[in-house]
This record gives sequence, structure tokens and C-alpha cells, in this order.
Amino acid sequence: MYGKDSMKMAKIADKLAKKYNIDCIFTGQLIDLQKIVLETNNLIITAQHMDSLVPGRGMGHVLPEGLVDAGIQAVVLNHAEKPLTIAKLDATIKRAKELGLMTIVCADTVEQCRAIAELNPDCMICEPNTLIGTGNSSNEEYILETTKAVREVNSNILIMQAAGVSNAADVKKVMTLGADGTGGTSGIINAPSWEDKIDEMMSALVKFKK
Amino acid sequence: MYGKDSMKMAKIADKLAKKYNIDCIFTGQLIDLQKIVLETNNLIITAQHMDSLVPGRGMGHVLPEGLVDAGIQAVVLNHAEKPLTIAKLDATIKRAKELGLMTIVCADTVEQCRAIAELNPDCMICEPNTLIGTGNSSNEEYILETTKAVREVNSNILIMQAAGVSNAADVKKVMTLGADGTGGTSGIINAPSWEDKIDEMMSALVKFKK
Amino acid sequence: MYGKDSMKMAKIADKLAKKYNIDCIFTGQLIDLQKIVLETNNLIITAQHMDSLVPGRGMGHVLPEGLVDAGIQAVVLNHAEKPLTIAKLDATIKRAKELGLMTIVCADTVEQCRAIAELNPDCMICEPNTLIGTGNSSNEEYILETTKAVREVNSNILIMQAAGVSNAADVKKVMTLGADGTGGTSGIINAPSWEDKIDEMMSALVKFKK
Amino acid sequence: MYGKDSMKMAKIADKLAKKYNIDCIFTGQLIDLQKIVLETNNLIITAQHMDSLVPGRGMGHVLPEGLVDAGIQAVVLNHAEKPLTIAKLDATIKRAKELGLMTIVCADTVEQCRAIAELNPDCMICEPNTLIGTGNSSNEEYILETTKAVREVNSNILIMQAAGVSNAADVKKVMTLGADGTGGTSGIINAPSWEDKIDEMMSALVKFKK
Repeated sequence: MYGKDSMKMAKIADKLAKKYNIDCIFTGQLIDLQKIVLETNNLIITAQHMDSLVPGRGMGHVLPEGLVDAGIQAVVLNHAEKPLTIAKLDATIKRAKELGLMTIVCADTVEQCRAIAELNPDCMICEPNTLIGTGNSSNEEYILETTKAVREVNSNILIMQAAGVSNAADVKKVMTLGADGTGGTSGIINAPSWEDKIDEMMSALVKFKK
Repeated sequence: MYGKDSMKMAKIADKLAKKYNIDCIFTGQLIDLQKIVLETNNLIITAQHMDSLVPGRGMGHVLPEGLVDAGIQAVVLNHAEKPLTIAKLDATIKRAKELGLMTIVCADTVEQCRAIAELNPDCMICEPNTLIGTGNSSNEEYILETTKAVREVNSNILIMQAAGVSNAADVKKVMTLGADGTGGTSGIINAPSWEDKIDEMMSALVKFKK
Repeated sequence: MYGKDSMKMAKIADKLAKKYNIDCIFTGQLIDLQKIVLETNNLIITAQHMDSLVPGRGMGHVLPEGLVDAGIQAVVLNHAEKPLTIAKLDATIKRAKELGLMTIVCADTVEQCRAIAELNPDCMICEPNTLIGTGNSSNEEYILETTKAVREVNSNILIMQAAGVSNAADVKKVMTLGADGTGGTSGIINAPSWEDKIDEMMSALVKFKK
Repeated sequence: MYGKDSMKMAKIADKLAKKYNIDCIFTGQLIDLQKIVLETNNLIITAQHMDSLVPGRGMGHVLPEGLVDAGIQAVVLNHAEKPLTIAKLDATIKRAKELGLMTIVCADTVEQCRAIAELNPDCMICEPNTLIGTGNSSNEEYILETTKAVREVNSNILIMQAAGVSNAADVKKVMTLGADGTGGTSGIINAPSWEDKIDEMMSALVKFKK
């Protein structure tokens, strides 16, 4: 998703984040984010990656200071499609803390969840990448185990459980299992009405939190 | 360079590109480029990297369609700080051609210049990375050899020679040695007046071209 | 393939390379190759990768001097499963030349074949990785085009065409289309008798060469 | 170090490991290790890297089964010169456990030490790479803090502290500070007599352990 679609989705999320008074993380292509920062008010605009470099050399790298200066508030790190070495992830989380950027780090297995929790990100997204395609349907077990693992290591980390979440019932389920938040991508993009779908999911989240 | 500095530099370059009627490639952090597209008229706004992915999955990757949609006209690939495998460079150049994005590919040794020329980018930047720190001052020889190498393989490729160029005399020298264009980074950033420095270099370029 | 199976295959290839007086490239896991060097006489024992480092630091890297010292004669570079940046491939080919190691570089598209030929390896393996799964059966066209591409750039490079080669007829076909050599992996490993299969393929090769 | 030098060092270490009845980890180039396995009896012969792949495809990768089959007993992972993503390190440690290979994982900062300890390797080498060149001489503090960090997470992990260890006094110091073992590279290689130097260090280790 990019360009006009990305802006359209951002504006819908912005409106509903206000309606439900919810912390809403929104991410997109870097090239689109500055405009979205300017045209929304209630979203945590989030980059999908950044590097740990400091101003100076670094053609083609994403400079943390540049993100902060443009109003970006958070960054996703270590997504399965952009995995980082432990040393880089550690360094990048530390750079983000220096600059006041919220870090949202993806993790896969229980062991990886515990390992990443030791690096003290602000938030983690637990996603069972290695279970994909294995026919292993133990989704509940995965959510329970990874949530427990992260909490044991560092109870201050916010936990998002998002795998396979695409409606109100899914939202209620993952929140009941102990997550602090959830999210969606394909479930929303493929819905007939983006607004109705996000409304349904946010509304379920707010009902649970009461 | 990012944020306000990047915008300030872009506006200076924009003004002078118009004054001298020159093709001026301008690059910066992705997060800053969309705004620069909107506030300038005479620059070829250029991303510092992109990936070869197609819309769909790809968290943290730079989507070519997103760049085009935002008005980006060109992309730098294979910079020494962001080297690509041959397979990825080939695929990314082909993706750029599909979308009408100009490709500007960095190359180092004579052999690498010839190899990259075979992948048919629109433009190449020859930079002697491997000579850095060797005390080898054969700059003229490097320019002559790499320019000849690229021309032999594909005479349609525009050649930029930019290593160590920081004033009018340098510009004249590399153009006399056969380059199609040149550029500067630190020479400009560190000058007392960015505008005076760019004016000096563009003016030298225009004088040579006559 | 590793351990005893690798040694068994090496001894069969060694015997048949002698019988047919053929240059036979044999590769395997690094851990197995030194023993194979000691127990065979007619094979070009080949590493599947090496790095461009020089003796000194480099934990976990494959040191060129170490290969040469152990009697390794050649190295495969840039296999689709171990792709290299252009700068690294250039540097590694140059290191191999310094040490007298034969370089065998894998290439995919016609453009990549031409690009790699500019780096002057001793031998190239053209393999249509990007065609895999596309339903594109233009195997003959691929062989003709890539062979022509490499020859145009540097006619001294030996060309191996090996995709889908698993019997005498395949060998004859690729040689007729202009290759200097061919090879096999799964076609041999899955044959009921490794010796009969290699004998069949080598015999076809020798018949063609006459 | 490779070839004859590597074998010479292995034989010295083998002799002294027997004399002092010490667990001695020995590593070298993969191409050299099989011969060293055959000609020594008292060393834990260790690969410097392996991949997590399973038998099948994987040109240029280091196959775990191949190492085990050749008598390799341990593997170093995540050295600063060969850093791994968290997902790969997790997968590779699990592959090693399946095959009974001992895992020795390198870690840098306190946070990285804790993170890696969560992945449950058999042994860790704490090395302050990020301190190098910072003028920070707090070596003792680093040893104390990282040792404590690993023990807190998993007290079964053996801890090696090896930075800057090159004589008997260094060995005594790191062992007194709580390490389970230590090691040396340049301190030994650059010594006038390898045998005297290793004897000095092993003897200091044995004295401490009593």
C-alpha cells in the first residue's frame, strides 16, 4: 500500500482513533509518511525500519534523526522481511531511545521473544513466522506462551499479538489471552469497507478494555 | 543531511538549476523527499536506494511504485554503503525501467564499471572506493580508464565522475577528461555559502558545455 | 551430500574422469574436501564459496590461502544460494587469480551473464534461476543466448550449461548448443547407480568432443 | 592461521590439554579441521560458523550434518565478524542441539549477553566489541557485568571471557572475576614459543581451578 491508498487509510484510522480515543500505530512507505504526519492528528506514525547510523555518511540508509525531525514517533524493527542481527538491533534500539522514538520489535519463537525482551524495546509484536505453513494451529498456545515469556523478562514491554486477526471476535480473543494490543493488515485491506472494518476492530478493543 | 537543511539545500539547487538550465540530480532521506518534490520545480529528485519488490508483502523495504507515485524520478543503486548482489541490481534496474525511473548506479574498479554497464543503467557514478586510503593519487587515470570502460560497453550510459570534486577547477577537470556530469557532497556542505559554491560549480559546468 | 556419500561419489568420479580423460570439477562440503583431495587423483576439487579476506582476522570466513594450501584447485562463486555483491565478486575473483585458484562463477539472466563475464572469471555456469517456476520452457533459447552473451564479452571464459541435465541426450544437446561443459547434481544423486549415470554422461561428453 | 601452522598449533594444544586434563576448544579453517580431528585426541574441535540448513540444497553453506559426520564437536556462532540475525541464531542453536553439537555464541554488550543467554547456548564468549576504540578501559567492570548478566538469565551456560587475555596473570584475573574459561589468539600466535605460552596459560587455569 502506498500513495493515495495509504493516505486514505491513514485518514480513516485517524478519525476512528479519535472517536475511540485509542493509541493507533500507523505505518507505511517512508516516502508517504511525512505527508501523513501533516494531515493526521491522532496516529502514532511509524517507520517500518531504520538504521543505527549517525548523521554523516550512509547513502541509502534510514537516518534516525531524519525520522524524528519529520514527526515520526515510532519504528518497527526486525520484521521477518527485514531481520536484524542482535548487535544491530541492540544498537538501533539504543539510538531510538536517545531520540525518543518508540521501538516496536517483531519476534517469532518463544526463545526469540525472550531474547528480544532483554533488549528492552517499548513494544513487541509476537508473530509465529516459523509456524506459517506448518499446519500447526496452536494459535492460542502461541499467544499465551509468548505473552508470558515477554512479561517474565520485562513486564514493562507492551505486547501486540496480531497473527490472523481480522475481526471483532479475533480482537476480543487475543486481548482476553493477555495482549496489550493487536492489529491487522490483510484483514483490513481486503475488507469491503476499510472504515467499517477498522471501526469493528477498534470498537471490540475498546469494549474489552472497559 | 535531513529536514530543514535538506529543504534549504534543495531550494538553492532548484533556483540555480533554473538559472543555468541544468539537469540537477538531488538526493536526500526518503522521509524528506516528498515535501521537496512539492516545493521545487527544476530538480531530478532521487531516492538513495530502492528494492525490487512488487506491491504486496515487504515490511521495511522501499517499494518502487511508492517512489514513482510520490514524484520521485530517479534512484541511486549499489552505493558503496549499500552494495547489491548482481542478481538484485539486475532485477532492480529492470523494475525501474518498467516504471520509468532513471537508474544511477555506483561503480568502483574498472572491472566493476564494465560489469555494471552491461546491466544498462541510465547513468553511472564512477567512484574509486578501493583507492581510498591507499595513497594512490592517480585520479586522472581512474577517470580516463573508467569513462573509457563504460563507453566501450554501452555508449548511451551517462557518466558522472565525482570523487574529490569541490570547486570550479575540479568540475572543469573531470568534464575535460570526458565525464557527462559531476557532483559534490562534502565540498558543498562544508562551504561557507552553499549557494555560492553550487553557483561556482554549475557555472563551471555550463561554461564547459558551451 | 556429505561424509561417506561424498567420498563415494568422489571416488566414482575420479575413476571415470581417468577412464575418459576428462576435466571433472567436483565439489562438496568444505569439511570433506581435504580428505577427498588426498584420496583422488583426477578431479578438480572445488570449494563452493570463499571470501576475499587475507590472513589475519575473519572468524567464520573461508580463507583463500587455506583452500590453496589444502590442495583445492577451484572455487564456485555467486551461486543463487550464496549471491555476492559486485564489489565482493570482483575482489574475490582477483584474490583467486593471485593464488592460482580457478574461478567458476554462476550467472542467471543474459544481462548478468554479460556483467559477470566482464569480471573475467575462468569459467561460468549459466543457470536460469529466474525462469524457474515461470513455466517458461525456452531452455534452448536460454542456452544459446547466454552462451553467445558470454562469448561476446570474453571468448576465453569456459561456459558450463547445466540446468536440467540428467542423461546422455541432455549432455549432447547442451554441447551441441555451444557449451564447453555441463554437469549434474540431482540427476546423478537420484540415479539407481551413480557410476552408471556418470559413465553415461561422461561418455556422451567424450563422444561429442571427438 | 591455516594449513601446517594450524596443525602444528593443534598438536601442541592437544599435548597440553592432555597434560593438564583440560577441556580445550580448538578452532580453525573448515578445510583444515577434518585432518586435525584425525590427528588429535584431547581437543574439542570447533567450526567457526555453520548454517541452519538441512541436507538438500544450499551451495556454499555449511551443513551441520557434515560437521558432525566429520567429528566436529562444537561450533562458534555470531562472532563479530560473522553476525547472525536473531531468527537465524535461534534456528542454528536448535539445529546444533538436535545433532549434539556444542554451541559457543559470541556476545558483546550486557544487553546482547542477556538476549543470547535466552537462546540457551551451551557456552558464551563475552567480547566487548563496541568498547574497542572507545578508550573505555573498564575491562574488569565489563567482565563482572556480563558474567552476572548471563548467570542471571541461565546459570547453566558456560562463560568464556577472553578479551585481551595473553598471559598467566590475565588468565588468573578473568577466572577470579567469575569466568568458567578463557582463551587466546593473538597472544599465543605472537609468542616466541606457542608451546610455552599455552603451557603458561593452561597451567594458570589449572592452578586457579584447584
